[in-house]
Amino acid sequence: MFLRIDHVGIACHDLEEKIEFYESTFGLTVVSREVNEEQGVREAMLHVADGPGGTSYVQLIEPLSPETAVGKFLAKRGEGVHHIGYGVADVTKALEEIGGKGIRLVDERPRHGSMGASIAFLHPKDVGGVLTELVESPQPKL
Amino acid sequence: MFLRIDHVGIACHDLEEKIEFYESTFGLTVVSREVNEEQGVREAMLHVADGPGGTSYVQLIEPLSPETAVGKFLAKRGEGVHHIGYGVADVTKALEEIGGKGIRLVDERPRHGSMGASIAFLHPKDVGGVLTELVESPQPKL
Repeated sequence: MFLRIDHVGIACHDLEEKIEFYESTFGLTVVSREVNEEQGVREAMLHVADGPGGTSYVQLIEPLSPETAVGKFLAKRGEGVHHIGYGVADVTKALEEIGGKGIRLVDERPRHGSMGASIAFLHPKDVGGVLTELVESPQPKL
Repeated sequence: MFLRIDHVGIACHDLEEKIEFYESTFGLTVVSREVNEEQGVREAMLHVADGPGGTSYVQLIEPLSPETAVGKFLAKRGEGVHHIGYGVADVTKALEEIGGKGIRLVDERPRHGSMGASIAFLHPKDVGGVLTELVESPQPKL
């Protein structure tokens, strides 16, 4: 079902400061910056590697306010890994399959994620404490 | 510097139960099981994807006792993502470069990791709360 580790989602207080850190320390490069009002985050995708199953990124996320889910995460746990995203070919089909096994879904239907992807989250309580995201990348334009 | 997301290290209470979960829910396959006495863990590597930069895995880790680092992590935070491992070509060189930038190193010199790899951890306090591992895979035998 999984084509790749799509990204590691890392929550931080200061997006620009953390981008500068990942660039200067590890040589990663920002390929996208977005504000996702629905998820209440400002974010950046940093390129790690390409493969036949797609690209892997570090995703840095800063909450738009303390009342957002990521804002509450930071207040409770501090900075660190917030979620893991795995690439799938078809997120609707993957949700059906996983939901059919009794795993609780945060998103019953896919919604818009970074860089035009269709995404959905699974409930961390049913995935061993890991907030798990399914990511279907957009089809390349012909 | 990073060739791939080598693995997501996930701490759990019951390794066999969690392996069964990842296999049956997501279709991942165990490619290695090891006990690492030095790190105080029993672990399994589950294959996610191959790419030109190497292979990506989910690593499931169960502490050998509550007194180990992972045992203490579980007691404090519960099950979830414990660390992120990134593939590098030369872990000794990467440690020198990163240490030279003032990042504190958990391991000044590489030690033995999963599947014959040379690994080293960076201090999470200097990497935005993320326990970060560098992984140099063994050279293929000719």
